[in-house]
Amino acid sequence: MKIGIINVTGYAGIELARILHRHPEADIVGVTGRSAAGEELGDALPHLARLGLRIEPEITRSVDVVFSALPQVASAEVCIPFVRDGVKVVDISADFRLHDPAVYAEWYGAKHPAPDLLETAVYGLTELDRDGIAAAPLVANPGCYATAALLALAPVVREGLVSERLIVDTKSGVSGAGRGLSMGTHFSEVNENVFAYAVDGHRHLPEITQELRRMRAGFEPSVTFQPHLIPMTRGILDTVYAELADGAFASAEAARDGVRELYAGFYADAPFVHVVDAPPQTKQTWGNNDCLIHPTVDVRTGRLVVFAVLDNLVKGGAGQAVQNMNLMFGLPESTGLEQLAIYP
Amino acid sequence: MKIGIINVTGYAGIELARILHRHPEADIVGVTGRSAAGEELGDALPHLARLGLRIEPEITRSVDVVFSALPQVASAEVCIPFVRDGVKVVDISADFRLHDPAVYAEWYGAKHPAPDLLETAVYGLTELDRDGIAAAPLVANPGCYATAALLALAPVVREGLVSERLIVDTKSGVSGAGRGLSMGTHFSEVNENVFAYAVDGHRHLPEITQELRRMRAGFEPSVTFQPHLIPMTRGILDTVYAELADGAFASAEAARDGVRELYAGFYADAPFVHVVDAPPQTKQTWGNNDCLIHPTVDVRTGRLVVFAVLDNLVKGGAGQAVQNMNLMFGLPESTGLEQLAIYP
Amino acid sequence: MKIGIINVTGYAGIELARILHRHPEADIVGVTGRSAAGEELGDALPHLARLGLRIEPEITRSVDVVFSALPQVASAEVCIPFVRDGVKVVDISADFRLHDPAVYAEWYGAKHPAPDLLETAVYGLTELDRDGIAAAPLVANPGCYATAALLALAPVVREGLVSERLIVDTKSGVSGAGRGLSMGTHFSEVNENVFAYAVDGHRHLPEITQELRRMRAGFEPSVTFQPHLIPMTRGILDTVYAELADGAFASAEAARDGVRELYAGFYADAPFVHVVDAPPQTKQTWGNNDCLIHPTVDVRTGRLVVFAVLDNLVKGGAGQAVQNMNLMFGLPESTGLEQLAIYP
Amino acid sequence: MKIGIINVTGYAGIELARILHRHPEADIVGVTGRSAAGEELGDALPHLARLGLRIEPEITRSVDVVFSALPQVASAEVCIPFVRDGVKVVDISADFRLHDPAVYAEWYGAKHPAPDLLETAVYGLTELDRDGIAAAPLVANPGCYATAALLALAPVVREGLVSERLIVDTKSGVSGAGRGLSMGTHFSEVNENVFAYAVDGHRHLPEITQELRRMRAGFEPSVTFQPHLIPMTRGILDTVYAELADGAFASAEAARDGVRELYAGFYADAPFVHVVDAPPQTKQTWGNNDCLIHPTVDVRTGRLVVFAVLDNLVKGGAGQAVQNMNLMFGLPESTGLEQLAIYP
Repeated sequence: MKIGIINVTGYAGIELARILHRHPEADIVGVTGRSAAGEELGDALPHLARLGLRIEPEITRSVDVVFSALPQVASAEVCIPFVRDGVKVVDISADFRLHDPAVYAEWYGAKHPAPDLLETAVYGLTELDRDGIAAAPLVANPGCYATAALLALAPVVREGLVSERLIVDTKSGVSGAGRGLSMGTHFSEVNENVFAYAVDGHRHLPEITQELRRMRAGFEPSVTFQPHLIPMTRGILDTVYAELADGAFASAEAARDGVRELYAGFYADAPFVHVVDAPPQTKQTWGNNDCLIHPTVDVRTGRLVVFAVLDNLVKGGAGQAVQNMNLMFGLPESTGLEQLAIYP
Repeated sequence: MKIGIINVTGYAGIELARILHRHPEADIVGVTGRSAAGEELGDALPHLARLGLRIEPEITRSVDVVFSALPQVASAEVCIPFVRDGVKVVDISADFRLHDPAVYAEWYGAKHPAPDLLETAVYGLTELDRDGIAAAPLVANPGCYATAALLALAPVVREGLVSERLIVDTKSGVSGAGRGLSMGTHFSEVNENVFAYAVDGHRHLPEITQELRRMRAGFEPSVTFQPHLIPMTRGILDTVYAELADGAFASAEAARDGVRELYAGFYADAPFVHVVDAPPQTKQTWGNNDCLIHPTVDVRTGRLVVFAVLDNLVKGGAGQAVQNMNLMFGLPESTGLEQLAIYP
Repeated sequence: MKIGIINVTGYAGIELARILHRHPEADIVGVTGRSAAGEELGDALPHLARLGLRIEPEITRSVDVVFSALPQVASAEVCIPFVRDGVKVVDISADFRLHDPAVYAEWYGAKHPAPDLLETAVYGLTELDRDGIAAAPLVANPGCYATAALLALAPVVREGLVSERLIVDTKSGVSGAGRGLSMGTHFSEVNENVFAYAVDGHRHLPEITQELRRMRAGFEPSVTFQPHLIPMTRGILDTVYAELADGAFASAEAARDGVRELYAGFYADAPFVHVVDAPPQTKQTWGNNDCLIHPTVDVRTGRLVVFAVLDNLVKGGAGQAVQNMNLMFGLPESTGLEQLAIYP
Repeated sequence: MKIGIINVTGYAGIELARILHRHPEADIVGVTGRSAAGEELGDALPHLARLGLRIEPEITRSVDVVFSALPQVASAEVCIPFVRDGVKVVDISADFRLHDPAVYAEWYGAKHPAPDLLETAVYGLTELDRDGIAAAPLVANPGCYATAALLALAPVVREGLVSERLIVDTKSGVSGAGRGLSMGTHFSEVNENVFAYAVDGHRHLPEITQELRRMRAGFEPSVTFQPHLIPMTRGILDTVYAELADGAFASAEAARDGVRELYAGFYADAPFVHVVDAPPQTKQTWGNNDCLIHPTVDVRTGRLVVFAVLDNLVKGGAGQAVQNMNLMFGLPESTGLEQLAIYP
């Protein structure tokens, strides 16, 4: 497969290049970058020198699939012509995640440039929609927080085991904020510091809500989604709190055992989602495509608590994008993604 | 005031020495250490050389007040004789926080060596019980997480504005785990990592529950308290989620304004608790005795969310201990604690 | 003393505000900031709210001393009128450190706006020129690296014990690069990373060379000064390598003992420079005005190695500036600077 | 190839497992661990669960090659029988690096258990002795610091371009200290801290000296080797200072150009050693087997300065061990080691 990467100089693009470089079926034939067009990739990013590519202003060579790692709005504009031309597209930005153009406009402050494609695009949370992704011309790769939250909630929501009032408290490394400079990513401000942000609403909330709603007919979730920034580069931990539906289990202890069994079964065939017996650590997924989930019940209060971790740039970004590409081209979903986490 | 510090070589003890060294009314006359007895303090801890003290096996000189920075169980044993002798004691360990010996035994796995003193001891969350602390012979200094959680909840619980089902999701730096070696505090394991711990119950839970119960007659809290470890040395952020009581406010927006006003008034006279207009950052309290609180309401769900930050070793430990000492000796509570946070 | 702080919103300015707030003889009457003029200081920097000041476009109230924490060039322009008006000035920038305008022009790429003041200004390395500083109308506060390097070398250079070929290998936290945004201070780029920078010459080199030359008649140093950036916020470690002068000591062992004795004597009366028996750690000076020095001799090669650590924003910046102000106003040099390091 | 890993539970062992898991010719058939024998590997180290191995007390199955990741002394004892039995061994410990048993005894405080094997063992710095390694029954994998220092110095030492008095100032992440607990690897002590250690001599010094001596007849190096610990998990930066031999180059500028050309040529065929045009960053080698080298000349002093970075657990440990194994079995040296650095 001939591959183009749009905006290779951002963190998602860099990660795509790293993963696809070792993918046995992939051949990166073109890469673009917003500010560095014309430079050798190895000059802009020395650790990618081995790819021997030049950063172009746009993808000009014929490609089978394009990955866009541009920010929202800009991404849609670049992706649209490829989709219209029949080139498969995986968009890592948020531009095709929301099906309702009005919701898009509300959260992203822009009129969507191709509302018709919103119906065509498939939300690319691989484990929850393999068939849809395999058939899609355009995959909207999910947000990093959303990936963890939806994987953490899917088994119990689909089974109707939790109430609609949900809390997702997340902790993220700084690379999720990208490579753009800001006081909120300035080393001396972020190091030895933790704080909440986006208290008036984070853009991953509407996609979480949209996808939860699709999991079960009539389920109308009311989610408080609260992200926090912590002083590390990679990794996301979502802690999800939910009230078990009345009568769902005979006791809190039964619930604890029951949800573990449910999750283990639900993800039994997923090569990258592992249901684990203890609270997972982001370090256990550093640099690879795994998502580790530990569902439990606080037996004192009867409340469901689910922990999910992943590497925001891999399963929460470039890795899942490649996983989706594999499905779109009929490859085993783990092709090129088999490497273990780097620990410590 | 002549002061003894028991176990000066742990992080709480080191911090007591730092603060009391600059306290205008305090004179440190004796310090003990578990393993380093006989050494010069400046040999064990070079940055404390200026104090010119030797680490003794026990406090032998006459003192007006003793601070214990020993771990639980060991601490009670050392404190008891001082209390019996009429020396004022501030215990930073958990040994005198719980009033019920049975609860103590359940959480700390030991029979309490002086159950009678549990009734005498006053829970030392300064802002919530100044009179009790001022009159107390023995103050049980609160846990770091508990301090943040209780300050975050006191205004709404006292006013009956929230339901009894509460969630406290906390993020803590590593120094809270103390100076003892463990895989969970080994640099390479903790750096670039975040994870939940104590999922089966953390020892700060019973003190949080006990103190919430005392805030309002008939209030029977059901708290999920979930701590997480993050890769930094100092600082705690408690994120508290609560459902507003039915009919408490006319609308979510009104609730948001109302709780801010309530908190601002509640802490108007507290020199160290500041109600702030944006999510606070632990770095804003690095090394000083402040607790910053930001109460808000998620208007989409109507849920109360309160953020509280503090330095676990200062307001969450040695600083609050000195604040309590000040009250016990009739000094202004901020004496010796006026320094600003060190930023960045 | 009525004090003005120019550019309070950078890291040096923030640190000046923190230290002077607790200085018993200082009264901050005006603060300026480049971008935040008109804002309340507590809105721009919440942890400084207690100062109750507004950020002004310039210092308009009558002051006894002005501290400038502006970057070079801009700083000189603002300081000059104060000096001309007889207000004492401590300039934390590099603008008055170099006595030779040609050298200034070479390293800072600008013609100096007041070459006459270069002769008036006193290089403010407190321990090496207390009398000069006490009498100076204008003190040029040294660079953070230069402070550590010069304190590490002064005893042996003054005594003629080392050859002129010197190596200073330094390791610095990121706050030394200031609050301005750049890829080199972006959290995800700097965290888990170490690298050398300024390999073609760092601006602290000419001031190090100038001051070494002044230490001993005829000493013409040839210094390789190589800084490295490491992933922490505060702290500098200078490792200095020098060849002992031929015949200076009878043996390498004798040299090791001899230099320790020399340094201990040299700094015996300095309240902030401590000659220690083991390699010092930056954490032992975190947030305070100490410089810890450990001179030793590699007995296998006979080479002198000196380690010096300090907090770049305190002894390497705002702290030394206040130490100098104390001398300029006839106060004990440690006034307002007595606090211990915050550890850990 | 059937492979055994001795002490898979230390950081070098964990890294061997990660790399060999994806090596196309390798099959890990047995792993041992000191404390965890009997446990499933996935219980001790969840991110290695996919290997489906049990930790054994010793390697019992037939193997073609054994890697030992035990600490020194213990490692020799376990390796010796394999060598005697004709199984190829790569020892990551220091036990077979020094050819002189007396030097071993001096630095490691133990009599070597098999002095005869010291002559058989080949020092495994791949790029400097490919033929020796290919033919060796026992390879002594170099120390992480030594790998960087020797690669940084080999071109100029072999050509006789530098004097014998050398300085190697190194900065290392904490994982180099291993997984054993100590105050020097306790998070709160190491974070936000930098310090020198091993000032009386580090164990990598004798192997550096031994190998430098072998580079050029009559070269008798006098090396000051000074390591520093910095707050990150992985990565080493060696900064090497050397005086150019008299008359080696016409000018400092000529020297700068000359050494770059020399290094580029010297490593032209090395797949993992890259001579780069700017000071390299450890992050550019995070998780992969590269060593990046930037040689330059300080034109003000005429001194050679060489920067070399690598990942201490990969090129400085497990990666180079696999590179050596490849040569020992006639495979291309980069087999299984092609992955790019993970950035950021």
